[in-house]
Amino acid sequence: MSRQPLLGRDAYRHWQTLPTQWADNDVYGHVNNTVHYRWFDTLVNSWLIAQGLLDIEHGDPIGLVVETGCRYAASLTYPGSVDLGLRLDRLGSSSVTYRIGVFAADSAEPAAEGHFSHVYVGRESRRPVPLPQAWRDRLELLA
Amino acid sequence: MSRQPLLGRDAYRHWQTLPTQWADNDVYGHVNNTVHYRWFDTLVNSWLIAQGLLDIEHGDPIGLVVETGCRYAASLTYPGSVDLGLRLDRLGSSSVTYRIGVFAADSAEPAAEGHFSHVYVGRESRRPVPLPQAWRDRLELLA
Amino acid sequence: MSRQPLLGRDAYRHWQTLPTQWADNDVYGHVNNTVHYRWFDTLVNSWLIAQGLLDIEHGDPIGLVVETGCRYAASLTYPGSVDLGLRLDRLGSSSVTYRIGVFAADSAEPAAEGHFSHVYVGRESRRPVPLPQAWRDRLELLA
Amino acid sequence: MSRQPLLGRDAYRHWQTLPTQWADNDVYGHVNNTVHYRWFDTLVNSWLIAQGLLDIEHGDPIGLVVETGCRYAASLTYPGSVDLGLRLDRLGSSSVTYRIGVFAADSAEPAAEGHFSHVYVGRESRRPVPLPQAWRDRLELLA
Repeated sequence: MSRQPLLGRDAYRHWQTLPTQWADNDVYGHVNNTVHYRWFDTLVNSWLIAQGLLDIEHGDPIGLVVETGCRYAASLTYPGSVDLGLRLDRLGSSSVTYRIGVFAADSAEPAAEGHFSHVYVGRESRRPVPLPQAWRDRLELLA
Repeated sequence: MSRQPLLGRDAYRHWQTLPTQWADNDVYGHVNNTVHYRWFDTLVNSWLIAQGLLDIEHGDPIGLVVETGCRYAASLTYPGSVDLGLRLDRLGSSSVTYRIGVFAADSAEPAAEGHFSHVYVGRESRRPVPLPQAWRDRLELLA
Repeated sequence: MSRQPLLGRDAYRHWQTLPTQWADNDVYGHVNNTVHYRWFDTLVNSWLIAQGLLDIEHGDPIGLVVETGCRYAASLTYPGSVDLGLRLDRLGSSSVTYRIGVFAADSAEPAAEGHFSHVYVGRESRRPVPLPQAWRDRLELLA
Repeated sequence: MSRQPLLGRDAYRHWQTLPTQWADNDVYGHVNNTVHYRWFDTLVNSWLIAQGLLDIEHGDPIGLVVETGCRYAASLTYPGSVDLGLRLDRLGSSSVTYRIGVFAADSAEPAAEGHFSHVYVGRESRRPVPLPQAWRDRLELLA
């Protein structure tokens, strides 16, 4: 297990707030550990769509998820909401790694911290391709 | 299939807005038909909790879901959000049936309409019990 | 609420067994009412695919889910598994309604009973079209 | 991103097979990256329950999920099934890390590899406690 402390709110560049839902709670009465990953997908893709970078039906290149992970520091619950922070962690030639901070509403302390890596491949070739400069410019807004 | 037209926004007494999430879309690129039921659970229980009626750990009586259903009129999608309207459809001695309207943000036309029935039972006996008057008073606010 | 008794195992023509999963249980320690609908989707589409009727990418006509519903008679739990029975309930000119029985493994008594209706539309027109005879022949195997 | 090759089938000590479900596929027609984590939860807890170690309602100590992660090497799809392999990766004084291999049915090549860490805490104190010897004995069967 990695032991660096989780990053605070000021590490993140873009925010989205999501409500928790009834079925997010598992039998322990807290948001199940898998729900965080649904939030990561929602946050990253919402940002990419808002930036005009992600076109699900026709986009080229397309991003394949190659690695995800999450460290959990505090439980979350329904009802409630979470603030999700997004930052660029690493920009490779054809890969992007994001860091995501999960904070209970109104809390300064992170409840969890995730990472999420895409490798970009050609829609037809399915081989890694360099990220277009327009993508790099946008992504660096999150650095 | 029941053939009454779906109810408009003015039929509903309480509202909650929920964002759609990436994983709500299925392979057809629209919110999967099962997601609506997750919204119904979230809406009904949020209202019950806000009214002070639902105490998950210690409440007595407890509500068992005995019937749910949904008619679908238009597709919904991620990214986006839905406005969920709640009304009381039928209040029995120990049962409650809600009607839920699902509307795309800013749309007057319903995308779907659901119903959701609880029967209330004693926490220990698991037999139906009459709904307390305090519950009836609150629930009638939704009629 | 409809009051007919739930159908027994001998009412169904096709069976699929699915394990329950950890996240299927909600805070009450039982399979959440929304999970049944995920099973219905899985069962109906698995059967259509096995029959060679459903081609997700290129099929024409395509089925739109227009109505679903479920009555719940007994709780289910993780760990465990469910036997799902499928029968044809009604075959219209361009619509199909299935009935699905949910039984705990080794139980003769139904835990839940659902229905699920598709209307078939042209892939381009999105208008209802008559079901091809090849579909009708297959579907009647479930009657 | 860690760069070790994913482990093969012979690295794992315990197996569970799960079918994929319709809603596991996202808009790209492949099992969404979050579904793997639902499988991890199901696999780990099924094993703990079968060993008599996990008692959801009364168990003491209880395991908190503190870190999860997954590397993805190949897409999976519905309909189909996955073979999930479980091994003990690291046994600390009050923590357990599992490794999980995800293989498409009949495939020798891993489609994904995850890790999953519990820290055990007292039910009341919520402070880390040493794992009982009975737990250690069982867990070492997975090493």
